[in-house]
Amino acid sequence: MTDFFKDISPLRYDPQSDGLAFRHYNPDEVVMGKRMEDHLRFAVAYWHSFAWPGDDPFGGQTFERPWFGNTMDLAKMKADVAFEMFDLLNVPFFCWHDADIRPEGDSFAESKRNFEEMVDYLSEKMESSKTKLLWGTANLFSNRRFMAGAATNPDPDIFAWSAATVKNCMDATHKMGGQNYVLWGGREGYETLLNTDLKRERQQAGRLLQMAVEYKHKIGFKGAILVEPKPQEPTKHQYDFDVATVYGFLKEFGLESEVQMNIEQGHAILAGHSFEHELALASALGIFGSIDMNRNDYQSGWDTDQFPNNVPEVALAYYEVLKAGGFTTGGTNFDAKLRRQSLDPVDLIAGHAGAMDVCARGFKAAAAMLEDGTLEAMRSERYAGWDTPKGQALLKSDLATIAAQVEADAINPQPRSGRQEILENIVNRFV
Amino acid sequence: MTDFFKDISPLRYDPQSDGLAFRHYNPDEVVMGKRMEDHLRFAVAYWHSFAWPGDDPFGGQTFERPWFGNTMDLAKMKADVAFEMFDLLNVPFFCWHDADIRPEGDSFAESKRNFEEMVDYLSEKMESSKTKLLWGTANLFSNRRFMAGAATNPDPDIFAWSAATVKNCMDATHKMGGQNYVLWGGREGYETLLNTDLKRERQQAGRLLQMAVEYKHKIGFKGAILVEPKPQEPTKHQYDFDVATVYGFLKEFGLESEVQMNIEQGHAILAGHSFEHELALASALGIFGSIDMNRNDYQSGWDTDQFPNNVPEVALAYYEVLKAGGFTTGGTNFDAKLRRQSLDPVDLIAGHAGAMDVCARGFKAAAAMLEDGTLEAMRSERYAGWDTPKGQALLKSDLATIAAQVEADAINPQPRSGRQEILENIVNRFV
Amino acid sequence: MTDFFKDISPLRYDPQSDGLAFRHYNPDEVVMGKRMEDHLRFAVAYWHSFAWPGDDPFGGQTFERPWFGNTMDLAKMKADVAFEMFDLLNVPFFCWHDADIRPEGDSFAESKRNFEEMVDYLSEKMESSKTKLLWGTANLFSNRRFMAGAATNPDPDIFAWSAATVKNCMDATHKMGGQNYVLWGGREGYETLLNTDLKRERQQAGRLLQMAVEYKHKIGFKGAILVEPKPQEPTKHQYDFDVATVYGFLKEFGLESEVQMNIEQGHAILAGHSFEHELALASALGIFGSIDMNRNDYQSGWDTDQFPNNVPEVALAYYEVLKAGGFTTGGTNFDAKLRRQSLDPVDLIAGHAGAMDVCARGFKAAAAMLEDGTLEAMRSERYAGWDTPKGQALLKSDLATIAAQVEADAINPQPRSGRQEILENIVNRFV
Amino acid sequence: MTDFFKDISPLRYDPQSDGLAFRHYNPDEVVMGKRMEDHLRFAVAYWHSFAWPGDDPFGGQTFERPWFGNTMDLAKMKADVAFEMFDLLNVPFFCWHDADIRPEGDSFAESKRNFEEMVDYLSEKMESSKTKLLWGTANLFSNRRFMAGAATNPDPDIFAWSAATVKNCMDATHKMGGQNYVLWGGREGYETLLNTDLKRERQQAGRLLQMAVEYKHKIGFKGAILVEPKPQEPTKHQYDFDVATVYGFLKEFGLESEVQMNIEQGHAILAGHSFEHELALASALGIFGSIDMNRNDYQSGWDTDQFPNNVPEVALAYYEVLKAGGFTTGGTNFDAKLRRQSLDPVDLIAGHAGAMDVCARGFKAAAAMLEDGTLEAMRSERYAGWDTPKGQALLKSDLATIAAQVEADAINPQPRSGRQEILENIVNRFV
Repeated sequence: MTDFFKDISPLRYDPQSDGLAFRHYNPDEVVMGKRMEDHLRFAVAYWHSFAWPGDDPFGGQTFERPWFGNTMDLAKMKADVAFEMFDLLNVPFFCWHDADIRPEGDSFAESKRNFEEMVDYLSEKMESSKTKLLWGTANLFSNRRFMAGAATNPDPDIFAWSAATVKNCMDATHKMGGQNYVLWGGREGYETLLNTDLKRERQQAGRLLQMAVEYKHKIGFKGAILVEPKPQEPTKHQYDFDVATVYGFLKEFGLESEVQMNIEQGHAILAGHSFEHELALASALGIFGSIDMNRNDYQSGWDTDQFPNNVPEVALAYYEVLKAGGFTTGGTNFDAKLRRQSLDPVDLIAGHAGAMDVCARGFKAAAAMLEDGTLEAMRSERYAGWDTPKGQALLKSDLATIAAQVEADAINPQPRSGRQEILENIVNRFV
Repeated sequence: MTDFFKDISPLRYDPQSDGLAFRHYNPDEVVMGKRMEDHLRFAVAYWHSFAWPGDDPFGGQTFERPWFGNTMDLAKMKADVAFEMFDLLNVPFFCWHDADIRPEGDSFAESKRNFEEMVDYLSEKMESSKTKLLWGTANLFSNRRFMAGAATNPDPDIFAWSAATVKNCMDATHKMGGQNYVLWGGREGYETLLNTDLKRERQQAGRLLQMAVEYKHKIGFKGAILVEPKPQEPTKHQYDFDVATVYGFLKEFGLESEVQMNIEQGHAILAGHSFEHELALASALGIFGSIDMNRNDYQSGWDTDQFPNNVPEVALAYYEVLKAGGFTTGGTNFDAKLRRQSLDPVDLIAGHAGAMDVCARGFKAAAAMLEDGTLEAMRSERYAGWDTPKGQALLKSDLATIAAQVEADAINPQPRSGRQEILENIVNRFV
Repeated sequence: MTDFFKDISPLRYDPQSDGLAFRHYNPDEVVMGKRMEDHLRFAVAYWHSFAWPGDDPFGGQTFERPWFGNTMDLAKMKADVAFEMFDLLNVPFFCWHDADIRPEGDSFAESKRNFEEMVDYLSEKMESSKTKLLWGTANLFSNRRFMAGAATNPDPDIFAWSAATVKNCMDATHKMGGQNYVLWGGREGYETLLNTDLKRERQQAGRLLQMAVEYKHKIGFKGAILVEPKPQEPTKHQYDFDVATVYGFLKEFGLESEVQMNIEQGHAILAGHSFEHELALASALGIFGSIDMNRNDYQSGWDTDQFPNNVPEVALAYYEVLKAGGFTTGGTNFDAKLRRQSLDPVDLIAGHAGAMDVCARGFKAAAAMLEDGTLEAMRSERYAGWDTPKGQALLKSDLATIAAQVEADAINPQPRSGRQEILENIVNRFV
Repeated sequence: MTDFFKDISPLRYDPQSDGLAFRHYNPDEVVMGKRMEDHLRFAVAYWHSFAWPGDDPFGGQTFERPWFGNTMDLAKMKADVAFEMFDLLNVPFFCWHDADIRPEGDSFAESKRNFEEMVDYLSEKMESSKTKLLWGTANLFSNRRFMAGAATNPDPDIFAWSAATVKNCMDATHKMGGQNYVLWGGREGYETLLNTDLKRERQQAGRLLQMAVEYKHKIGFKGAILVEPKPQEPTKHQYDFDVATVYGFLKEFGLESEVQMNIEQGHAILAGHSFEHELALASALGIFGSIDMNRNDYQSGWDTDQFPNNVPEVALAYYEVLKAGGFTTGGTNFDAKLRRQSLDPVDLIAGHAGAMDVCARGFKAAAAMLEDGTLEAMRSERYAGWDTPKGQALLKSDLATIAAQVEADAINPQPRSGRQEILENIVNRFV
């Protein structure tokens, strides 16, 4: 046991508490026939909580963590603290990048050795913990070699390095029983079109994704392959802009039935969408997978990765998750970082605990709205004309036939109220 | 002859002029083996120039045009003035919505009769004018019946009305020798997910687009079917968000080889993209068609539809157009409106003339950059590694093989400068 | 009695209702020693609810109201319906522009006569209604004469017209017992600097505001003069950008103790601020007055003027209002419009009722947070060093003295946690 | 001599060059009666060019500079390279933060000793160089002690540390003959209102600024004190949002005749303003000082600090500078960083050289527009009514008098065209 969280006890469900406890999240509470823990499938992100130093573009490290440094011993101390936090929070899952859990080596081979040793170390810790791996992923953006992209790099050697890294990360995810493998295209984008061959880079990215899918089948990994869209930052333009963009990309490379989406609220906002839009669209396209439940400040133009704290927003998101059938391999990952002024161990616990409570409240509200049924009944009623034989026939008709009919029938369709305020009032009965 | 432009003479090419003349646009100047008029293919938009009253959300009509009103006589006066302007500007093309050119009738049938009479009237005018039809389109957004969408309306009757309207507009476009037919999804989007069945609406929109393609083939229309993306406004979320989104949509409905893009600078900006990005992407995906060359104020969150006035920006756009092979059926449409304070006839002429000059300057700069070849040589050099046998083989390999090779070769790829500032300096030699 | 709201009964406080009732707003409930009605001071905006036709930049009128038109009889029918709605909602206040309540005449004099007759008509209605006037204001932006500004117009005659209109509106407000008089600078801004003399226009605006203050004192109007900031739209740049900007303007013209702010959430958002920021700043500067409680879609770049529906956001706003001492002459105006698809009378009632409930919930949460005291205690503790004699002395010292002391004491101050997540969790206990 | 720029020769003015040369910037060319060097007063920013490692929020150092490290020897090598670049570029000025030029010490005293030694070292280098100091400033944002602000910190000791640092930086600026002293409020803002006492922090900031002004007079520093506005980033809300905000702040603390503005294009854009707006406003308010000529990507929500490359934009900015009377103590500072992929020494030279050429072109265009006089004549004509006795009298009148006159005269003012497109066309004749 490290003493990092020395004054903090495991958090319990205590609705009356005004201290460190869950006031809304009761993992064993059954909602719509399933335990909340099994619905929500919370995961802690290793990187923000344990690897990020608190820097920003105008200032350096603010956090002072005893495990900061680039040695195997420190990496193990970091892992020890991480599992202590997982236990305090009683979370069922965590997520990692390779670069979060192992020290960088001087060569590919050394980094790989470090990585494999840490995978073993973490696997051992997982044996005595309830916390499992939601997903692993490769960090193909921090090191300067990736500055012009990983799969989309103009240098084939960097594509090769990236592909090899993905292979190792997929192996480790598989070994650790991970439920998914994620690709976020950190530097897969461009700064200026003037030096960019957009078509080539698109082909390179498509090919790497195909290779990852092929490799998944080869090694028998049963988890899902997830792509995480983001519109910009770090690059001026990221190729995986949003769900609709990635869908077109998957169709182009024949991957739409092999790959699903890991959708982040913050990235949705940066793309000009609501979170629920991205979720509903992924569901409509059959590619919904998992979520990163961390908000962006609507008024800051960079990725603020804050813990969720607005219950009504969260409720609308889980409403779409539930309508999509809920999570299968996916879950609720907090890709959230403390504000850089939140220096203390207790801030780390409180940030996660508050987020879990906000999610629990939002989720229960979403479930209640769905069980109540009013919203869905009003939606169905609005489109009822399309369920009639006439409505169905229309979609199978053609312009000339329809035009003749419109004139023959002298139709004069009148608009009906969209009832937006009434629907918003109904939502407010539940949140 | 009306007397609307009574004091204004036809504009001539006169590089030294400080009055109403073209200082840069010489239609007969040959650039890269083709006359500029044939490269640029300018078009005037009927709606902004002749139908828009100058209102905005906080104020009503500012323009006082003698043809404003809803009678056939006024519609014909409007057409007369329009062709007088086309002549003054010597533009080869114009574009219309049905609602721009005909008075609204009390029924579908009456509107159609009005429309057909005006199509004949315009066709007659075209016989004695050089100005041809670049494209026609249907206004499926202004009338209150479309408030909840046209193809995507919850009411099948409105789908039918819309389909019938598209049929009539395609017929008219075909009859008038139009080079393209455009669909812009004005109200094809939503205000709130709470009352929206996104999946259904997507199917409806896809089906209407398929019907339009089927009808094109049925009537032997040889022009292109173009979709015009826009991310939002009037709706909170428009389905045709941007080029990448529409590409996914076309793939879903099997239309990617039947439909091309009409890309507007202003809409690109509202979607968070540069214009050149959208052009390059459409070209990479094989769906580039035509452009609306009207800028948006980068700092206003609504569609400002201003005439282009920044030559360097325009040059980068035409550079992508030229790299895509230039226009075939497409052209340069000014979907631009005067500022609502620009009340006078001379403002209408000056707005277009200035825009044509800006385009001519930008186009000539783009052609010079392409003929110079430095930019393309630097781009090719940057990706040269991919053209080697080793680079080509890499794309056909697999993760395990690549990973083994990376370790065996102990590669350690080093980043190379992206040379953005140098490339920007090169561009500035031409603009 | 008109029959516009014929099927709708007056709304009652009924926490269990799932129909048209107040579930949270109980006007007589005492919070922090005062009735909620007296705290919140709700007002209905005449313009959005009764004068706006439902148009937007891409489409015309959607609402069909029997009182639409430009006659005195219709204006009186509109007034009758308005007071019927005030009664149904039991609101204590309403607000108007001159142009909302009277038909436009053919001349200044005729408009004035219409206005005065309607002021009398409304005054009479007020006698039998609980609903009083929160504020009046002049519409100096809709008519084309104001297209280049009112006070800031390049034409002195339009300044004169505007000044005369303000005079008449102030007279009417005074006569009707209005609690405040508001100036929103609809067209007081510019489209392009190229035709604008920013310094002149600033002087003109400053002078008109001085005249309004002088006139207030002359006629003995005891209400507050309020300025309403907005950053842009309709103009590219509005002079009254935000609270900080208006404060500088007031200081320049010596008006900072004469004029207060009417702060709108939607305008705050368009300016890149949170609503609570604008409220806190106005309070810190001693110029807080009243609020427009209508949200903007964070992702739409135009003024969406939606009814509030997010309780946590509203709670943070009322927290600042309460810290500022609550409203004196000010109140909670809904400068909110129905979505243009919300066609029915019931939508108008439901929009307001839902908003009043959201405000009531937010307000009660804010009061509870303040009474609880934890947030303020933590804030005070954070700045406690400044309350010590040493802290106080520091502000009276000088650079040289301080520098000597820093070296002499060899201070090495360490950062302390800002506790943002913990504070956000505390808020979530109340909302 | 270091060998960092070993293959690069001093840049010359050579209009025909397609290599590293000035194609437009000729320091000795006389424009409007003054040498261009004396008009433009270019300055290189020490921090971006020599201290920034190329990191961003998603990746670390990309630049490999032999002087990176925290020793005095490396600091001197950095200074040597800096002056070699100043010589190659022939720039008349540079700018620094204390933290750019000296290694951080273990204590305030040690940092100060390092700083003073480096000030001497730089002063010595300046003796044999043409390059002078445009301004110095204190870095009060990078170190973790400033994470919650410098002057606005809740901890008075950090205020003291900051004040002492400002004193030392002002001393050094004075000693080095600096023309201005700048304060940019890097962390003077907040992340969340929940832990912030906005009023207190405002008082603290005002007091530090007063102290700086008092100290300037005490030591006889003749340069200007400049404040640099920025709306957000690093903090969610910066107190010095924009020019209008800072003006109100200066008025509050009685500093409007003591402090001027250093206006950055990128910050203007982030605040939702055009650069020319901020310049024109500062000029109108009498607080224009100096500029940071580095653009922001209009579509990236963070500070991109790119070299200027759009001539028309730059021309409009210098037009306002010239109208304000040109620079006195101020100048054109490039607070611009290379893109992090621009690794090579030549990129550093090319970035600056290209920017200087863009500025020269823009400046010459601005001067030509001013000398041509058409724009100003049209502006004056537009406001001519205000220069008549009647217009002047109007501003001295009062509401009642004006209202009586409006009715008596039965005025009916008609709008006149704002001529925006024509004005934009005129500008395009010069850029």
